[in-house]
Amino acid sequence: MTYCVGLKLNSGLVFMSDTRTNAGVDNISTFRKMFTWEAAGERSVTLMTAGNLATTQAVISLLNERAKPAEDRGNPSIIEAPSMFQVAKLVGETLREVIKTQSGQDGPEAEATFSATMILGGQIKGAPPRLFLIYPEGNFIEASDDTPFFQIGETKYGRPILVRAYDPAMSFEDAVKLLMVSFDSTIKANLSVNLPLDLHVYTADSLHLGTMTRIERDDPYFNTISTGWGDALKDAFNRLPAYSFTT
Amino acid sequence: MTYCVGLKLNSGLVFMSDTRTNAGVDNISTFRKMFTWEAAGERSVTLMTAGNLATTQAVISLLNERAKPAEDRGNPSIIEAPSMFQVAKLVGETLREVIKTQSGQDGPEAEATFSATMILGGQIKGAPPRLFLIYPEGNFIEASDDTPFFQIGETKYGRPILVRAYDPAMSFEDAVKLLMVSFDSTIKANLSVNLPLDLHVYTADSLHLGTMTRIERDDPYFNTISTGWGDALKDAFNRLPAYSFTT
Repeated sequence: MTYCVGLKLNSGLVFMSDTRTNAGVDNISTFRKMFTWEAAGERSVTLMTAGNLATTQAVISLLNERAKPAEDRGNPSIIEAPSMFQVAKLVGETLREVIKTQSGQDGPEAEATFSATMILGGQIKGAPPRLFLIYPEGNFIEASDDTPFFQIGETKYGRPILVRAYDPAMSFEDAVKLLMVSFDSTIKANLSVNLPLDLHVYTADSLHLGTMTRIERDDPYFNTISTGWGDALKDAFNRLPAYSFTT
Repeated sequence: MTYCVGLKLNSGLVFMSDTRTNAGVDNISTFRKMFTWEAAGERSVTLMTAGNLATTQAVISLLNERAKPAEDRGNPSIIEAPSMFQVAKLVGETLREVIKTQSGQDGPEAEATFSATMILGGQIKGAPPRLFLIYPEGNFIEASDDTPFFQIGETKYGRPILVRAYDPAMSFEDAVKLLMVSFDSTIKANLSVNLPLDLHVYTADSLHLGTMTRIERDDPYFNTISTGWGDALKDAFNRLPAYSFTT
């Protein structure tokens, strides 16, 4: 399993992904699930992946090959596509192609095995930042004011706090704090999601990659949030009015 | 889907279940998922069900038939079984039998369709209160100090607060408040879980059914908790130390 979240804020985009992959509980590894492309001053693109690791690695490899300059190749690439919509289309088509290839003639059941989902976000000069959720079928949806963030992987445990505390006007600092609380709830509940976490904060209209950090297992701020959140939740719970059996 | 929780406290057992069943999002109904049996002064038994409604209703009907006095029948019944362990065994066997019968010759795939899971709790004179989780295979596990509560159905959204705020020494009032917060998080996230909620609070060693309440859609306390919890969460979040990009 995996947990990745992409938030669309007024001031930019914030991405966080975990790094645990597993094939059974006795076969766990650390793999990066966040990938970035940049044409400084012109575009910044971030992609996060959940699903079959062979699929997602093949997609990234294909996207990277296509991102290299190729005089004799007509394919658009992530750093050439004219809009974020075209980038999403390219990623979706590549994902669909890899899933189809890997599952061969084995039909829908194999496709479920080799499936993957992705969150894509970024900005290309002349247009606002955009955030997409890409499905294994290759199609995609875009974040809007009504649905301003996307989660992939193990989405349920960390969702209630996102729904309650997300605010498009929040600062990057608050957004990182919010993501850490959401990841902490997920990590506490699902063995297949774990630190280290990758973080990318993209500032709107910068057209450069922003702050990129890896939050390691011994990160003091994460540990403060993890213990502090338990106490804060208990406090919040205690401040709610008491139930009475006579009402 | 469904959401049911059974808590084992020092002072007794608390059960809460929702009442929504659905076959698709356009076919929803209200059905009770909590069932009780009592032999006043001798035993109190509560059963909550999640899964295929035809299966769970058949199980309850069979258990009720068997609970009637039957001179010429050797089957033990819920109100005759000598221990909660034997009650759990009886419920598990009945559940397995119904799933097997309904799926006929159609094998494991049909069994998945007709599957159900149950939470059973209660007390029989001479033994402490016990709480069980019964699987569709008919076997079961018992709550212990390490795992003092069980959830069935849509368990993920409401789990983080249970893990953080549950305390075996908590009062019944606090336990009901905790369950309402957990149910509210689930109801907000999953359309297939909804009010009204059924509540049964069993006081240890009473050997009678305890307070049984239905929490309706317009329940003022539930609404207070639902709105208050959003604010309380935001407060708790704001009181956590801020993230700084320079650390």
